[in-house]
Amino acid sequence: MLLKENIPFGYVFGKIKFELVWISLYAMAIAIFHHNFHALRISVPIAIPAILGTVISLLLGFRSNQAYERWWEARIIWGAIVNDSRTLTRQLITFTAHPEETPPEVMRFRELFVKRQIAWCYALGQSLRKLMPMHGLDRLISARELEYISKFDNKPVALLELHARDLDYALKQGWINRYQQVELDRTLTRLCDSMGKCERIKNTIFPATYSLYIHLTMNLFIILLPFGLIEFFGVIEIPLVVAISASFLLIEKMAIHLQDPFENKPTDTPVTAISRNIERDLKQILQDRQVPETQQAERFYIL
Amino acid sequence: MLLKENIPFGYVFGKIKFELVWISLYAMAIAIFHHNFHALRISVPIAIPAILGTVISLLLGFRSNQAYERWWEARIIWGAIVNDSRTLTRQLITFTAHPEETPPEVMRFRELFVKRQIAWCYALGQSLRKLMPMHGLDRLISARELEYISKFDNKPVALLELHARDLDYALKQGWINRYQQVELDRTLTRLCDSMGKCERIKNTIFPATYSLYIHLTMNLFIILLPFGLIEFFGVIEIPLVVAISASFLLIEKMAIHLQDPFENKPTDTPVTAISRNIERDLKQILQDRQVPETQQAERFYIL
Amino acid sequence: MLLKENIPFGYVFGKIKFELVWISLYAMAIAIFHHNFHALRISVPIAIPAILGTVISLLLGFRSNQAYERWWEARIIWGAIVNDSRTLTRQLITFTAHPEETPPEVMRFRELFVKRQIAWCYALGQSLRKLMPMHGLDRLISARELEYISKFDNKPVALLELHARDLDYALKQGWINRYQQVELDRTLTRLCDSMGKCERIKNTIFPATYSLYIHLTMNLFIILLPFGLIEFFGVIEIPLVVAISASFLLIEKMAIHLQDPFENKPTDTPVTAISRNIERDLKQILQDRQVPETQQAERFYIL
Amino acid sequence: MLLKENIPFGYVFGKIKFELVWISLYAMAIAIFHHNFHALRISVPIAIPAILGTVISLLLGFRSNQAYERWWEARIIWGAIVNDSRTLTRQLITFTAHPEETPPEVMRFRELFVKRQIAWCYALGQSLRKLMPMHGLDRLISARELEYISKFDNKPVALLELHARDLDYALKQGWINRYQQVELDRTLTRLCDSMGKCERIKNTIFPATYSLYIHLTMNLFIILLPFGLIEFFGVIEIPLVVAISASFLLIEKMAIHLQDPFENKPTDTPVTAISRNIERDLKQILQDRQVPETQQAERFYIL
Amino acid sequence: MLLKENIPFGYVFGKIKFELVWISLYAMAIAIFHHNFHALRISVPIAIPAILGTVISLLLGFRSNQAYERWWEARIIWGAIVNDSRTLTRQLITFTAHPEETPPEVMRFRELFVKRQIAWCYALGQSLRKLMPMHGLDRLISARELEYISKFDNKPVALLELHARDLDYALKQGWINRYQQVELDRTLTRLCDSMGKCERIKNTIFPATYSLYIHLTMNLFIILLPFGLIEFFGVIEIPLVVAISASFLLIEKMAIHLQDPFENKPTDTPVTAISRNIERDLKQILQDRQVPETQQAERFYIL
Repeated sequence: MLLKENIPFGYVFGKIKFELVWISLYAMAIAIFHHNFHALRISVPIAIPAILGTVISLLLGFRSNQAYERWWEARIIWGAIVNDSRTLTRQLITFTAHPEETPPEVMRFRELFVKRQIAWCYALGQSLRKLMPMHGLDRLISARELEYISKFDNKPVALLELHARDLDYALKQGWINRYQQVELDRTLTRLCDSMGKCERIKNTIFPATYSLYIHLTMNLFIILLPFGLIEFFGVIEIPLVVAISASFLLIEKMAIHLQDPFENKPTDTPVTAISRNIERDLKQILQDRQVPETQQAERFYIL
Repeated sequence: MLLKENIPFGYVFGKIKFELVWISLYAMAIAIFHHNFHALRISVPIAIPAILGTVISLLLGFRSNQAYERWWEARIIWGAIVNDSRTLTRQLITFTAHPEETPPEVMRFRELFVKRQIAWCYALGQSLRKLMPMHGLDRLISARELEYISKFDNKPVALLELHARDLDYALKQGWINRYQQVELDRTLTRLCDSMGKCERIKNTIFPATYSLYIHLTMNLFIILLPFGLIEFFGVIEIPLVVAISASFLLIEKMAIHLQDPFENKPTDTPVTAISRNIERDLKQILQDRQVPETQQAERFYIL
Repeated sequence: MLLKENIPFGYVFGKIKFELVWISLYAMAIAIFHHNFHALRISVPIAIPAILGTVISLLLGFRSNQAYERWWEARIIWGAIVNDSRTLTRQLITFTAHPEETPPEVMRFRELFVKRQIAWCYALGQSLRKLMPMHGLDRLISARELEYISKFDNKPVALLELHARDLDYALKQGWINRYQQVELDRTLTRLCDSMGKCERIKNTIFPATYSLYIHLTMNLFIILLPFGLIEFFGVIEIPLVVAISASFLLIEKMAIHLQDPFENKPTDTPVTAISRNIERDLKQILQDRQVPETQQAERFYIL
Repeated sequence: MLLKENIPFGYVFGKIKFELVWISLYAMAIAIFHHNFHALRISVPIAIPAILGTVISLLLGFRSNQAYERWWEARIIWGAIVNDSRTLTRQLITFTAHPEETPPEVMRFRELFVKRQIAWCYALGQSLRKLMPMHGLDRLISARELEYISKFDNKPVALLELHARDLDYALKQGWINRYQQVELDRTLTRLCDSMGKCERIKNTIFPATYSLYIHLTMNLFIILLPFGLIEFFGVIEIPLVVAISASFLLIEKMAIHLQDPFENKPTDTPVTAISRNIERDLKQILQDRQVPETQQAERFYIL
Repeated sequence: MLLKENIPFGYVFGKIKFELVWISLYAMAIAIFHHNFHALRISVPIAIPAILGTVISLLLGFRSNQAYERWWEARIIWGAIVNDSRTLTRQLITFTAHPEETPPEVMRFRELFVKRQIAWCYALGQSLRKLMPMHGLDRLISARELEYISKFDNKPVALLELHARDLDYALKQGWINRYQQVELDRTLTRLCDSMGKCERIKNTIFPATYSLYIHLTMNLFIILLPFGLIEFFGVIEIPLVVAISASFLLIEKMAIHLQDPFENKPTDTPVTAISRNIERDLKQILQDRQVPETQQAERFYIL
């Protein structure tokens, strides 16, 4: 997630620098051609690029809205993961509470379970970003569980599976009743749904033809633009074409970044930072001291 | 689902090639007529096509938004099918777990159930695409069950019916309790809902008058366009008319493809690939070795 | 629901034929007046109708979006009715299953219940369309039940009431347990919600001032249009005015049809066809042979 | 809710009559000034108001969409109140049913409960409209309950509280079981949610700056409009300015009315009429004869 | 939340006063330059800023829509907090009701619980606004509980934790049954979800590039605007540029305020006022006399 401040100038325009160089050269070429070959001058009434400009504005408007909604949905899903992680922990602790002092094996069971939940958050975030999903999990789950999940293609699925088995074990031990098992299982179902929703956003390519057609129409607009401006402005046409094109190109790029929020880029949903907050909250509920520090912003974004 | 790369040029423009040929001929005819019959020249102020252009842009914008939402809803539904298939498997395995070793008949029951769930996914995908819904199910369910479902018009309904009967059988055998039966039944209800939602999208034609009126208005715009351009451009009007028309036509076509996501076309929701992933995940939970390979992309799309 | 093919030309333009005749006469009158009374000529710069055209386009765009959403919501509700009818049947059969052979009174109870559910679908569809709600129900429910529901103003409410009483009866007979009764009652609650949602769409008039103001603005636009075109086109203004007006009028009409989906018109949500499919599916689950045929399309639509 | 027919001319334009008088005077003043002071003539190219016109159109489009959604949400909430009132009644009657004849105290309990539910609907509607919330409740609930609720600021909250106590009483008497109590309590929770949602819409002012800025921009547009038209039209500018301004003003007013649906105005959500329908339905389920008549439309709207 | 009346002129324009001063100076500079240096005069056809104006209008339209939706979602969440606080209280009182007189320890338990719920609302509101989250809680919860929550970074999480422990205590004491515990726990889960949703809105920065690109495009528009107007208007260009720029700037500022509803500013969601209403309602249900007064509006807003 980009922060509000310190976004470097280079970052903003770096994404469209090749396009801008190309457009500048093109606009210059038109200006030179127009100046030297009077007989072949073509001038387009500005209404022509204006029609195209309106069309693209509208389509870009709708498209950035859809990209925004994908990005916002991704954030909503991770918000739900925060909520359900807290709920799972709260339910686990309350449901396994004992009238007198809680026996040490239950204490240990709770700790293992909650740490596995923290591991699940990190594993999900890393596998969505196509990083090593098991990186750093060894401080949270045991070697035996690490080995178990290594057999699965989808590590978070395997961790939920272990959760479910532990709940069954707790039921057999009499630590929770059948009714509570089903209630905890529902929380697992919600976590399973959130995981699936993230995978859906990650794996579904924004309709390729949609992007392509808007891109083509925008190029047509940029190609026509100098002809519409040259008669009025002469050489000043060049910076105008560049500036107007840059507006459209930047908005298109923004939509492209928003629509894919799990790419390990500065515009991502900050899944690592969120996971770290989950770790802090859950460990404080467990009264664990080893709370991680809040992630430091990397100059202008958090990941 | 179209992939980002390798979309062939022919695929993109192949869909509108007849329209483009027709429009080129029309634009040429206007140019020739204009050149030869000075007395009958008609020229339209560009503002006229501009008004129509704005109207169509807006309507196309809203329409592609609605088409996009149908397409996205179809993907959301199949995401829910992934989630509920995993949840069903997790619940089945946890709820039927035994304190000591699980007896072989329960192991077999689980396997039959989970394979039937995989079969349900394939059957639903194939029947939505109006293919043979039972194709390839013989490797997943028994001949007796195949015969049972062959009596139904709607095969996935029949498979869910078999699921429900099996749950009842498990209850009678004491493998699950009444409370767990109802919980598993709720997961079936969600799968039943997803199935019905897919059928709704498949069977509901996008409002025919909506498409028709936009199409007529767009044609009116294309018919007027050459008259608006001829005076300024002469012959160069021809490529301009073709290019501008192509922008509008491509966006209309894209909306038409997005709005029907179960047509066995490259722009479909990739139900076969999703079903294959479900098969892989569920079999790994069952610790079955015969995991299918991930579907290979067919040049520029997956189905 | 209109089908994609065979929509007759007369149907499309029949809805706006009076308006088109009136507009043609008006446009002609302006042309004649302009030709004969040079002194009183008024010409409007085309920008004036263009501003109004943009406003109306936008408002029509938003309005057709809202109308579309009402129409789509109606279809979603009927999709949910399909799903919940299937779920109700599945739950009823599974929950009342017996370890050995199911006793005949339970078999009969199921059949009565499921047929009443089918009757509910038809009754709801017919009462939404302000047809005789009880027409054709005699083949599905008994004379005594018909008499009971005839005392109610709202027949589908009465049928759900009978459903609930039957569930209570089944509980008293020990065919289902208390837990299953509540679960079945929840399915009834969802059906009750769907019914209420349909009534909401039926009874809520689309904001009358909204329609009226758009209509007035559109008329103002059409009145100004000939003055904007007359100077450039002379007589050719007449077909242009008619064609442009027709675009706007058709889109307005379409919105009017979409926003009221239970009017017994070709653009309706096809509730009869959906009910017939529900009848087919439920009877196949009951293994009843008297399955109705799929509704034949009436030339260009299904109801 | 405004009906489709009979909306009087005076009602439609009455809301903007002061603005129209003011605008007419202003447009006349400009025309006179323009005619008499040649030296000080100012003429604005029509493109200037056109830019502003597009901006306002867009903002008004989005704004009427948001206002429409508030209005539609209010209607959805009252639809949910209809559904949950029916569901509450159905559950109450089914859950308290007796194997043999139902004892008279249960009959009486049901009647009191259902009448209190009807009273809740009226009380909620009246308190949303800032009318006397307890007006007319004496025919539905007892004097003692009236006194109890009079101590609360929020009467509908108090009625739900009485509902909950009655459910507890029924549990203690053994008329319903614990499981059914919780199920009925969930229906109360949904009613409580609907109440809170209505209060949210009532108490949340549509963002004041949003309305204000659109209003200011629209005024700027109207102020510039005569200068853009005066050169082409002379005196005819006056009716044009009035007509175009009226279009924008009417759409703004419509949004203002839609966004506040509980103001005791003709454009309200018809909460009284809905409550009366609830009374009719619930009393027919109770087999009560004193069913109220459907509310008569007051010329052109129902409340 | 801003009230409808009394919004001071200074508040509205205060936010853009620096921009307006800067724009005035710029527009003046252009006018002076144009007047004095005839040879270097640049005039832009008004169509150029018109294209940009349309683009920005559209993007601002979509953006204010998204900002509005964030603001409205924040209000919906706090509406849900109101509902769930009432529901929690109603459930607590009904579920712990005794056949005869309720024992004093239960009375005391209820009071502590309900007051802690009120404290949770205040604490959540204050921590969202980055104020001292524990300010003023001492009148609602005990010193021991204050100390417990002081160890947590996230105070509302700690308060929910205490809620859950109290429910477990009540279960152990036999005041509620297991079924009711789970039902109350679900209400806690909903509160936990609402809390997480508020945190999501608070912590998620509206896409920074989105804001930035719109801002840059708007500046480009404002820079070009005087060149488009200077030829027609001369000096009158200056107020026009200022007025048109102000329209756009105000709408942008409004979006910026709406998108962040927990900033301790007049445009905030009024969480303190809502918490006070919750306190009043819950205390009246408890029949507590110390009901707080409704918050006084601070001239033109409530917080």
